[in-house]
Amino acid sequence: MFKVFPVKGGFENVKGFFCGATNVGMRTSPANSDISDIDGDVAFLRSQTTCDVSAIFTSNTFQAAPIKHFQKYPKDFQTNFVLINAKNANAMTGEKGVEDIDTIMSILNTKIDVLNPIMSSTGVIGYRLPIDKIISAFDTLRFNECNSHKTARAIMTTDSFKKELAYKIELDSGESFNIAAICKGAGMINPAMATMLCFIATDANIPKNDMDELLKQSAEDSFNRISVDGDTSTNDTVMLLSNKESGAYHKEAFREALNKIMFELAMMILKDGEGANKLVTFEVKGAKSKAEAKKASMALSNSLLVKTALFGEDPNWGRIASTIGASGINCDEHKLIIHYDDLLIYSNEFRELDAKREEMAYKIMKQDSFKITCDIGVGTDSYISYGCDLSYEYVKINAEYRT
Amino acid sequence: MFKVFPVKGGFENVKGFFCGATNVGMRTSPANSDISDIDGDVAFLRSQTTCDVSAIFTSNTFQAAPIKHFQKYPKDFQTNFVLINAKNANAMTGEKGVEDIDTIMSILNTKIDVLNPIMSSTGVIGYRLPIDKIISAFDTLRFNECNSHKTARAIMTTDSFKKELAYKIELDSGESFNIAAICKGAGMINPAMATMLCFIATDANIPKNDMDELLKQSAEDSFNRISVDGDTSTNDTVMLLSNKESGAYHKEAFREALNKIMFELAMMILKDGEGANKLVTFEVKGAKSKAEAKKASMALSNSLLVKTALFGEDPNWGRIASTIGASGINCDEHKLIIHYDDLLIYSNEFRELDAKREEMAYKIMKQDSFKITCDIGVGTDSYISYGCDLSYEYVKINAEYRT
Repeated sequence: MFKVFPVKGGFENVKGFFCGATNVGMRTSPANSDISDIDGDVAFLRSQTTCDVSAIFTSNTFQAAPIKHFQKYPKDFQTNFVLINAKNANAMTGEKGVEDIDTIMSILNTKIDVLNPIMSSTGVIGYRLPIDKIISAFDTLRFNECNSHKTARAIMTTDSFKKELAYKIELDSGESFNIAAICKGAGMINPAMATMLCFIATDANIPKNDMDELLKQSAEDSFNRISVDGDTSTNDTVMLLSNKESGAYHKEAFREALNKIMFELAMMILKDGEGANKLVTFEVKGAKSKAEAKKASMALSNSLLVKTALFGEDPNWGRIASTIGASGINCDEHKLIIHYDDLLIYSNEFRELDAKREEMAYKIMKQDSFKITCDIGVGTDSYISYGCDLSYEYVKINAEYRT
Repeated sequence: MFKVFPVKGGFENVKGFFCGATNVGMRTSPANSDISDIDGDVAFLRSQTTCDVSAIFTSNTFQAAPIKHFQKYPKDFQTNFVLINAKNANAMTGEKGVEDIDTIMSILNTKIDVLNPIMSSTGVIGYRLPIDKIISAFDTLRFNECNSHKTARAIMTTDSFKKELAYKIELDSGESFNIAAICKGAGMINPAMATMLCFIATDANIPKNDMDELLKQSAEDSFNRISVDGDTSTNDTVMLLSNKESGAYHKEAFREALNKIMFELAMMILKDGEGANKLVTFEVKGAKSKAEAKKASMALSNSLLVKTALFGEDPNWGRIASTIGASGINCDEHKLIIHYDDLLIYSNEFRELDAKREEMAYKIMKQDSFKITCDIGVGTDSYISYGCDLSYEYVKINAEYRT
């Protein structure tokens, strides 16, 4: 049918896309300038031909100016340019924030022809964009080159490594198309709280309807599993651009590739959790409904007491049970069964860990990643979410973020 | 009308109550034995005459065995004895956990006449009570003395100071009655997550209906304002016992004294927040409904990003705004106004802090306690909740709790 396989690099794999970044000095005074790997603060992604665009934005009522600016375009508009900046979220900046984007884009348009340009920002909330600094980038950005690594690095804030992936899809017909993406985000388990940005570019000849459908579905199975509904930042954005330049398309192949890319990026965000050391999979099964399974699973991946126990490598299953009981789902302590990886930790017949099994539990928890499975025992629905531990480092990073 | 004033000490102020504690060695192997102030692990509270009892228990589905045991008594039962232990929550222990309490109580009854004795436990989840150790306490507990301080200390777990209060109420008629309480709990802002126990004794001649009504109302204005709905431990308990021995009662006076006691205890829990250094009041006003005001206020006092910013003493109002926007209430960035104490931090006309006001904001945040007021500007309803900062110490305490 088709082959989906990873390739090296990022956007340079996708026909007709250019990208790059430059440093206009926005990183100098604020924090994180000590990450030597970051050498830009203004970046762009453009296509030589116009693109369809699908986007998913934060559910925060206070959407940042770039999101409001995007939403002013007519439905199903096309674009060929995305401008991205770090260190300033352009959020809570009112109408002025949107006007600033128009100003920047009108100046951009004197340098290079852009159609319905999009802006995307991440950083501190509540400050107007430094327009002069940002437009100074237009003198040094190389609009006809493709420096994907540099672009991926430039959008980082508290990230400790860049997030960039590319997949090639080969169809039986001999045709092929490509998808690449970059992403930033390093929240605790909740990338939404620190801004999450993800830009995906493809040369597949994908219809706009499929873009909307598949982006939404992939987000549900990736970023939404490491994030809490409704607890999102002002700027969160996942954007898919397609310029159709390969001429090739196959829906199931595209779905598979997009799922892979978005899931891998979500896991990269989690592994880069601020101060986090462990990646834990929380499977809740045997729930009365999928909604209840999700509720309990997300409660586990977000519980401070669970997260600190993971950091302490303490097989304290009581905190797991207590969190499920507190989540408000249908459950019964006589039916609950808890496993850490394949080790039975709790069931009605087996409530206390003996020394030997406690030793085995410690070993499991010492791993970089493992799975906690809770069978609620009252139904057939399940849900998987992904979390990480909470360390001293998380507190340090977030206490010192702005200054 | 009446006078309500604090008096020294605890239960010794209330007619006809006895209490005390002893050490049976439950604290030796687990953590926290280094708190030299704690010298007991099994405690009791008893009345020489029978008491009416009102109680509020956790909303966690997995209620601990002591709560199930309580609920087996007929509605409006009377009692004269409460047995309390630390270090073991007797939660997730199934029917055996309840049977263990019956066993302990039948042995207690051979030592002293008890009527419908109540048990209350705090500590680690998932282990059967050490019955032999607990019943060994009956040989050393002094059932006819009142050692309130010792009792308050014995119920501590991660608490760093004991929580004990007493009030005297004098009526114009010359009559008087008394209320005293002890409490344990030192959750972050969420005492519910670490077990919260509170025992209140009064000699007021209060009808059972008033007990139920006033206890519920006071809890709503105290413990519930520092806790998240539905996010409660398996053991949380607030209990009011009245033996009527003073013969005196005045509803409004009792209400005032109970409100004071429960609010002060709630603030003590917050000040004793695990690793916390600051007590912050979050007032949300101008909301469309009280439910929305509460939702936003609780979102603020629970936000990790807000809490770490408080710890970092960073006047990053963007995190406040973002949390309100994410809470899902009706709001509009043009109508929102944020104050830190009396300092205007954000409004539509005033979005960026200048250096002078930023300096003033820093000074406010350096205080041990201050107030953040958010006027949503879309209605007339308000709600106040109370939070604290999140420090490295919180992570340390909770990573190491069990072992």
